[in-house]
Amino acid sequence: MQRLHVTSGSFPYDVIVGRDAWRALKKFAATRYRSTFVLTERGLWRRWGKPFCAASGLKNARTVWVPEGEASKSLKMVERVAAALLEGGADRRTLLVAFGGGVVGDLGGFVASTYMRGIDYVQVPTTVVAQVDSAIGGKTGVNVRAMKNLVGTFYPPRLVLSDPAVLSTLDKRAFRSGLYEVAKHAILAGPPLFNQFERRLDMLRPRNAPALGPLLAQAAKVKVNVVSRDEREAGLRRVLNLGHTFGHALEEATHYQRFLHGEAVGWGMLAATRLSKRLGLLASPEAERIEQLIRRVGPLLPICDLLPERVLSLLPRDKKAVGGRIHWVLPERIGKVRIVADVPRRAVAAAFREVQRVEWHE
Amino acid sequence: MQRLHVTSGSFPYDVIVGRDAWRALKKFAATRYRSTFVLTERGLWRRWGKPFCAASGLKNARTVWVPEGEASKSLKMVERVAAALLEGGADRRTLLVAFGGGVVGDLGGFVASTYMRGIDYVQVPTTVVAQVDSAIGGKTGVNVRAMKNLVGTFYPPRLVLSDPAVLSTLDKRAFRSGLYEVAKHAILAGPPLFNQFERRLDMLRPRNAPALGPLLAQAAKVKVNVVSRDEREAGLRRVLNLGHTFGHALEEATHYQRFLHGEAVGWGMLAATRLSKRLGLLASPEAERIEQLIRRVGPLLPICDLLPERVLSLLPRDKKAVGGRIHWVLPERIGKVRIVADVPRRAVAAAFREVQRVEWHE
Repeated sequence: MQRLHVTSGSFPYDVIVGRDAWRALKKFAATRYRSTFVLTERGLWRRWGKPFCAASGLKNARTVWVPEGEASKSLKMVERVAAALLEGGADRRTLLVAFGGGVVGDLGGFVASTYMRGIDYVQVPTTVVAQVDSAIGGKTGVNVRAMKNLVGTFYPPRLVLSDPAVLSTLDKRAFRSGLYEVAKHAILAGPPLFNQFERRLDMLRPRNAPALGPLLAQAAKVKVNVVSRDEREAGLRRVLNLGHTFGHALEEATHYQRFLHGEAVGWGMLAATRLSKRLGLLASPEAERIEQLIRRVGPLLPICDLLPERVLSLLPRDKKAVGGRIHWVLPERIGKVRIVADVPRRAVAAAFREVQRVEWHE
Repeated sequence: MQRLHVTSGSFPYDVIVGRDAWRALKKFAATRYRSTFVLTERGLWRRWGKPFCAASGLKNARTVWVPEGEASKSLKMVERVAAALLEGGADRRTLLVAFGGGVVGDLGGFVASTYMRGIDYVQVPTTVVAQVDSAIGGKTGVNVRAMKNLVGTFYPPRLVLSDPAVLSTLDKRAFRSGLYEVAKHAILAGPPLFNQFERRLDMLRPRNAPALGPLLAQAAKVKVNVVSRDEREAGLRRVLNLGHTFGHALEEATHYQRFLHGEAVGWGMLAATRLSKRLGLLASPEAERIEQLIRRVGPLLPICDLLPERVLSLLPRDKKAVGGRIHWVLPERIGKVRIVADVPRRAVAAAFREVQRVEWHE
């Protein structure tokens, strides 16, 4: 079990990763709160509610259900959850536990940041992506119309508890999708994590999720380090967007139907790698190693049917300015990326066409 | 024109009160923002949009309309406004101007605090209550079901611009309702403001609103001082609830149909005064002066038809704890209140029955 420490403008907090991480809630919540509510999904809670309550010492916690899926990240759901909290008697001394993946975490964080103008919450991420990425950093948000996270807050949790055991009931695809985000952190972190991920990749399956433990802690640490230095996305935090530029465009182009988020990021990292190589920023052998790692995570549904012009038109621009420039996060070597804002469109299109032709052999 | 300074955990900001306060926006916004959006009501903007744009130097500001009335303080409206901002191209370098009364201010502040995780906003209050109270202090919020401000944030504006000229088009009742809040601040502030308010009360009408200027500045200063010392409602900020305990209960008991907010606070202050006297905290002559001042603001619709038990059951309890105690703010003399948490129910009921019998002569 590893305890990582996040510094934040609001208050510092810990990210606890590893077997039995849930136990840390016992000591933390024992005397601080008058009541505890768990925001979660029914199926997930049916399987993990009991062990979670046993490990964390939660008694009499009330649950608030959220339907599975991205559609739950809505202001309508915020209203429903807030009404359920009120009805259940939640007040400013209530602790909210967001028990689930990215949707529950983003929604739960937003509710916590606004219910009675702010109550405490704890993230208990139950997917790979959430454990290494989205549950850390205090970004909350819901979608408005087609716009992801248009409405949200910066509001750190009091604690993040990531037990890899919970990953064992993920289906294979969801599990693998999360590994693309681990790969992203490995590329950002450099040789120690990258090498270890390379070595262990073949044995990573939901059923031996606990073996992921040490890797997860290191991958989470990448996020912890970045957000501790740049909580509000002033600059450094942008490196976390590696693979997300193309990734977002692919998700939109396929109406969020074809890919899980991590899978789109997988394609996105392949494209960023090709683009970087094409621009002369990344040497061939390193590019090859990065690409191999991503490809070994698993096959991805094809993108050869997508029109490049359409995908390119959907590339997200700098959030600070609608119609702003596209900030590319491009690997220079394993352990180093560069942010480039003026990449010629032709190079982007060419890199994209190249990855469209990538074939997978399982 | 007076410039009051608010200190805040986030950043300090100014409240500018007086004729031509709007002009201060010119210098402030000139170079900071890429675009400006005004959140306002149609009728209000039709009357005041041009003078406001002329004074503030706003060019090409886009407007987002909010229907009049409390129903606009909803998450549904947040969604609509956010969608309109996005459609209009608002980004993180957009300034939002909340031009209106409490509803527009509370909603606008909430939208600003969450749109793209936070953009800057300026409060331009156009009612008496908003100018002396709700636009200052950074509390934002929307209602969920029957619960006022259940969802909200602490998020200070960058500037508050209160020009009394805009009050001249208020209808007489709305104007007078705001004067009860001025009376509240006068009771809290003590003799200088109280005496001045007593002297000028009879000449205060919408049409000579500019004469209100100096009074408004002093009343606003009461709020500025309190929130500068207690932004997050840790304790001191509670004094602002003078008259609000009974007031809220009366509003609820009459389903928010009979009274404007300030009017309910007027009744509430009368009840608090009677209660304080009954508990031996307030001497008769001072009680008489306070009551006279409140009564001179104008007649209030009667409450003699309301069942005391029902009203008493609706008294709001400490927000920090559902089912918590009732914190009474009771005047001890002009310029001093005391917070009392253990008032016998019998005394409360008796005080309420007393004010039910108060008669008004216009």
